[in-house]
Amino acid sequence: MKSARIVKANEPLEVQELETPKPRGSQVLIKVESSGVCHSDIHLWEGGYEGLEGQFLKTTDRGVNYPLTPGHEIAGIVDSLGEEAEGFTKNEKVLVYPWIGEGRCPACRIGQENLCDKPRSLGIYRDGGYAEYVLVPSYRYILKMGDELDTDASATLSCSALTAYGAVKNANLKPNDNVVIVGAGGLGLMAIQLAKAVTGSKIIAMDLNDEKLEAAKKNGADNTINSKKEDPVKAVMELTDKMGADAVVDFVNASKTVESDIQFLRRRAKLVLVGLFGGELKLSLVSMPTRAYRLIGSYTGTLSELVELVSLARRGVIKPLVSNRFKLNQATEALTMLKEGKILGRGVINP
Amino acid sequence: MKSARIVKANEPLEVQELETPKPRGSQVLIKVESSGVCHSDIHLWEGGYEGLEGQFLKTTDRGVNYPLTPGHEIAGIVDSLGEEAEGFTKNEKVLVYPWIGEGRCPACRIGQENLCDKPRSLGIYRDGGYAEYVLVPSYRYILKMGDELDTDASATLSCSALTAYGAVKNANLKPNDNVVIVGAGGLGLMAIQLAKAVTGSKIIAMDLNDEKLEAAKKNGADNTINSKKEDPVKAVMELTDKMGADAVVDFVNASKTVESDIQFLRRRAKLVLVGLFGGELKLSLVSMPTRAYRLIGSYTGTLSELVELVSLARRGVIKPLVSNRFKLNQATEALTMLKEGKILGRGVINP
Amino acid sequence: MKSARIVKANEPLEVQELETPKPRGSQVLIKVESSGVCHSDIHLWEGGYEGLEGQFLKTTDRGVNYPLTPGHEIAGIVDSLGEEAEGFTKNEKVLVYPWIGEGRCPACRIGQENLCDKPRSLGIYRDGGYAEYVLVPSYRYILKMGDELDTDASATLSCSALTAYGAVKNANLKPNDNVVIVGAGGLGLMAIQLAKAVTGSKIIAMDLNDEKLEAAKKNGADNTINSKKEDPVKAVMELTDKMGADAVVDFVNASKTVESDIQFLRRRAKLVLVGLFGGELKLSLVSMPTRAYRLIGSYTGTLSELVELVSLARRGVIKPLVSNRFKLNQATEALTMLKEGKILGRGVINP
Amino acid sequence: MKSARIVKANEPLEVQELETPKPRGSQVLIKVESSGVCHSDIHLWEGGYEGLEGQFLKTTDRGVNYPLTPGHEIAGIVDSLGEEAEGFTKNEKVLVYPWIGEGRCPACRIGQENLCDKPRSLGIYRDGGYAEYVLVPSYRYILKMGDELDTDASATLSCSALTAYGAVKNANLKPNDNVVIVGAGGLGLMAIQLAKAVTGSKIIAMDLNDEKLEAAKKNGADNTINSKKEDPVKAVMELTDKMGADAVVDFVNASKTVESDIQFLRRRAKLVLVGLFGGELKLSLVSMPTRAYRLIGSYTGTLSELVELVSLARRGVIKPLVSNRFKLNQATEALTMLKEGKILGRGVINP
Repeated sequence: MKSARIVKANEPLEVQELETPKPRGSQVLIKVESSGVCHSDIHLWEGGYEGLEGQFLKTTDRGVNYPLTPGHEIAGIVDSLGEEAEGFTKNEKVLVYPWIGEGRCPACRIGQENLCDKPRSLGIYRDGGYAEYVLVPSYRYILKMGDELDTDASATLSCSALTAYGAVKNANLKPNDNVVIVGAGGLGLMAIQLAKAVTGSKIIAMDLNDEKLEAAKKNGADNTINSKKEDPVKAVMELTDKMGADAVVDFVNASKTVESDIQFLRRRAKLVLVGLFGGELKLSLVSMPTRAYRLIGSYTGTLSELVELVSLARRGVIKPLVSNRFKLNQATEALTMLKEGKILGRGVINP
Repeated sequence: MKSARIVKANEPLEVQELETPKPRGSQVLIKVESSGVCHSDIHLWEGGYEGLEGQFLKTTDRGVNYPLTPGHEIAGIVDSLGEEAEGFTKNEKVLVYPWIGEGRCPACRIGQENLCDKPRSLGIYRDGGYAEYVLVPSYRYILKMGDELDTDASATLSCSALTAYGAVKNANLKPNDNVVIVGAGGLGLMAIQLAKAVTGSKIIAMDLNDEKLEAAKKNGADNTINSKKEDPVKAVMELTDKMGADAVVDFVNASKTVESDIQFLRRRAKLVLVGLFGGELKLSLVSMPTRAYRLIGSYTGTLSELVELVSLARRGVIKPLVSNRFKLNQATEALTMLKEGKILGRGVINP
Repeated sequence: MKSARIVKANEPLEVQELETPKPRGSQVLIKVESSGVCHSDIHLWEGGYEGLEGQFLKTTDRGVNYPLTPGHEIAGIVDSLGEEAEGFTKNEKVLVYPWIGEGRCPACRIGQENLCDKPRSLGIYRDGGYAEYVLVPSYRYILKMGDELDTDASATLSCSALTAYGAVKNANLKPNDNVVIVGAGGLGLMAIQLAKAVTGSKIIAMDLNDEKLEAAKKNGADNTINSKKEDPVKAVMELTDKMGADAVVDFVNASKTVESDIQFLRRRAKLVLVGLFGGELKLSLVSMPTRAYRLIGSYTGTLSELVELVSLARRGVIKPLVSNRFKLNQATEALTMLKEGKILGRGVINP
Repeated sequence: MKSARIVKANEPLEVQELETPKPRGSQVLIKVESSGVCHSDIHLWEGGYEGLEGQFLKTTDRGVNYPLTPGHEIAGIVDSLGEEAEGFTKNEKVLVYPWIGEGRCPACRIGQENLCDKPRSLGIYRDGGYAEYVLVPSYRYILKMGDELDTDASATLSCSALTAYGAVKNANLKPNDNVVIVGAGGLGLMAIQLAKAVTGSKIIAMDLNDEKLEAAKKNGADNTINSKKEDPVKAVMELTDKMGADAVVDFVNASKTVESDIQFLRRRAKLVLVGLFGGELKLSLVSMPTRAYRLIGSYTGTLSELVELVSLARRGVIKPLVSNRFKLNQATEALTMLKEGKILGRGVINP
């Protein structure tokens, strides 16, 4: 089978011919029809993230091995099943849950494999979906898609939408809460749709780009703030009767956005940090107890949450969007366009 | 009535003769028998806390007015009741819940008045217990003590023990969790007792002082680490099968302790920040989502939690400790001794 | 002031001239503009409910005293305030939270006064809103309404909508859950609106009346079942892939509906019982552990939940409906019409 | 291998020679050292339970097939592993989690396999531990026992203690709550130990047998009631200041006990039903909303809870007790003795 693989940091991906795996035990082999292109793939390609004081956090120090076939947003059809795999038949349309754990840590045992101590996520620690086939370690990680959904749009549920959903859930929003969604890109827009669909809260979208803020309004934001044109702290205070935000979900998570977030938090507020932009925050320690803030790191979501998203998407309650389509040999181009901010929405690879 | 009051920052407290209040409506007047001396009283006396980059956060900017009668750990007897106050009779032994809110914010409405948007806590925003009498705004904020409890020990339940309890609850401990309690002073020791009594978790106490660590063991710690003599990160890793701590409750909350805490957290761990020592933390933003940490500011506790503490103390499940007793005209001496670390346990003023 | 009062069970209400109360302490006097007419007022009028084996549960055994001014859904304007009441000014439009507790039980202390051990609810244990004025024991129990809302519609938020909301919350619905709403009257329709607005679940409405089921569809039900025409168990099984309902909210709560509910529950399902119709259920005890069911009694809602409802209503997310308006001297007529099923929607009294 | 099997209802178990299974995929073969004898094994042996109105609920209607090797409390050593099984080595001492689900239902996906829609529990739906070897479908369901624990005592953790723990957790106890534990047999005593260890609540044990009540005191009960000698309702009211119990955990769950339970519940109380004794309850429907009761069916516990129990047992916080030991060919004798009430504590089979 053909796979587009990262062989060396920042070098073009190589399309390699690998042996097609044979599923055994509980494993299932999926023929990939669509594999989303995600910002975190860029970090895999660059070999790391920016940490404290300009330090570079290498992916290899976190257990990633190269060459690697990236791609964790995978939709396709069942090709073949191991002898203990069950519940699916050949050619069935399915979605893959990629955030697989080793199965025996406390997180795995309560169905939060995305937070496993020793993760084995597809497309990160194991070969993923930038390929003609992908081997899934158990039938437990695949979901029936139904006929209502477009394969390309579905693929994006398993990371883009799931990360947005996990973050919205971590904010634990109630009606009457004011939530600020920082960053109105693909994830931010999906978070707005989800907060609208299941929380009843009042949504303030914040971004530097008026076009994105326009999209935020269309996706359900009650108010918008262009933090390039307005002082974000003053603007949030005005929109919240001077109380500040009950919750913030920051899809950028850079020094600049979080420094500003922390100034418009209401007492007791939750600040959910999602983005992988990096950098550092100088946090005043005494304000943590006196203001009773909660800073919550949010990383993708659970299999159970993906089931909920599929249900919402099948009924049209949320609408995932795909903007760009690529072939397997265009993987480098896809990542480059994403890095340069040229993909508005979500790109997918159709192998 | 006589009150020991802070008139000016860092000046000796003045014992003033004020008019004894008359309770009306739902109010209750309490004759103070015991009023605890708390570290946060020192901050009121000094006029503020250390914030970011050596900046000084003034108490007057947070709504405190001087002259002020401090004292928020108050036990005594009912003196008189307003015409709508009910459920208590003259001379009944009672404990006061001091963390009173304005009653109409979202926190107050779910019984979390300690986290009110516009707090009116006794001894901080309103005159407190360093006095012969204290006026409590409603009978709802006083609790029957029963005969099992010593008045001096009881007084310390409403802040020292309550803060420890609120913090332990915020850590949401389960059996098999490893929790590190940083700082084995009065609050830390009570947190150890409480974690032992109601969570089933494995408790590691950390301090710089061997004597305190010895006390920690006696109060229920499974293991201790002297972070002056051992590398705290290495020591925690060894005690946790290299997994790191599932939770940390930091009663110091200074740059130095928190910088170390953050290095021995397990993925998904909760870091509960309680102390008011101050300073700043340089937080690597990207580690928040990838490691799924939670930083939780914890401020005292609810009235409901105080009821639970009183129940535990009456049955002897927890044992609050009082070490030093002072008269009203020794208030300055009491604060000075506390500041200089000369009170091992808890001091109380008996007016 | 004029008050329409229940003097004797089943006798016409008397319009009496009572002295207008004067608020003191934290109390507030409200000039009533609208007071909803609720099914539970009928039980007060009849003097009780049907219990086990045809037994009659008397309201007087539960602490109700006659003569009584009923009316717990109260909207109006502030007339005057006690000397410690704050946050409101004369003539301000307000809504009253009537589910007041005695303030010192475990439920009151976490803001669940509706579940107080010794309730003092307005219009049930204390004189209510079928009157020109009502005395509210504290400013904490009144809410600003804003200008967006109609007074008559607002009044119904504090019981009709609040009971629906409390019940929906007790069902703890998630997207992808199938919930059956039994009874598509005023409460059922509001529950459908609320489940739609804040849960993302799939809603099946069940009733005996096609007209009401039509209304259920308009209010957001995904499917409807007429349990007079179809076998309800078979119908639910068909709509849920033979799995059964994840949750049921029964606004009738009569022997007949609950006997049917229990047959279409999925393992682990929650059965939320709300209605006051009465009767008994023969419950198979062994099925409780083996099927892991939860039967949950749900009684109105909290002040905090009423705040959330007001927020949703002000933004038009939910739409309370008023169908009939009465004068104070028509109180008996209003109750009679309601009893005879002639009020479709909600009736209010405008004193 | 030898297996003691139920071939026909109420007939003696047959010791059959079956082929020893070979593990493949993720499977693990365990050499059984100890297999607990549980009350629910009697129901399997009798072919069913008592349901409504004397109706007999057949196990075969719930998916059980005969011949069946019972035994779901299994401790032993690892014999061999499938090619994808990991984390264990031959001869390691382990405990088996028997409450295995089919893996794809909503319960399984959040780690609650004990509540699966289509359960595959060992010793109930699949062959269990009354045998020399048992095949476990995945390494995920086995736990290291460590050297601190006795194999016989450990075995009882996976049902007897786990059911007690799941029930105590469902009661959601807080310090100051009064909980009544009905039935002071093996499960009840363990529930008392667990409530003592992790909740801080006040424990009232209820039984018909003074000897058992004596044991209850030794295991941590604060008070005891012999419901044969005293009126249980009056006795509970006296012990709870006339408020009633905040929670009841009923390990008998027969008509008689539950009818009494329901009379001493406090408003808002939780009634956790655990036992499989059977029978019916006439439930007054109107009391469910007005009193806001919760009836909660509780069925064993999760894998995650078993991990917690093992941790508590290894540290000596709880002490599982074994009273009788049998050989494989004494399985019928073991079940008979249990049925006749002759096993005080817990019996185990050592194949």
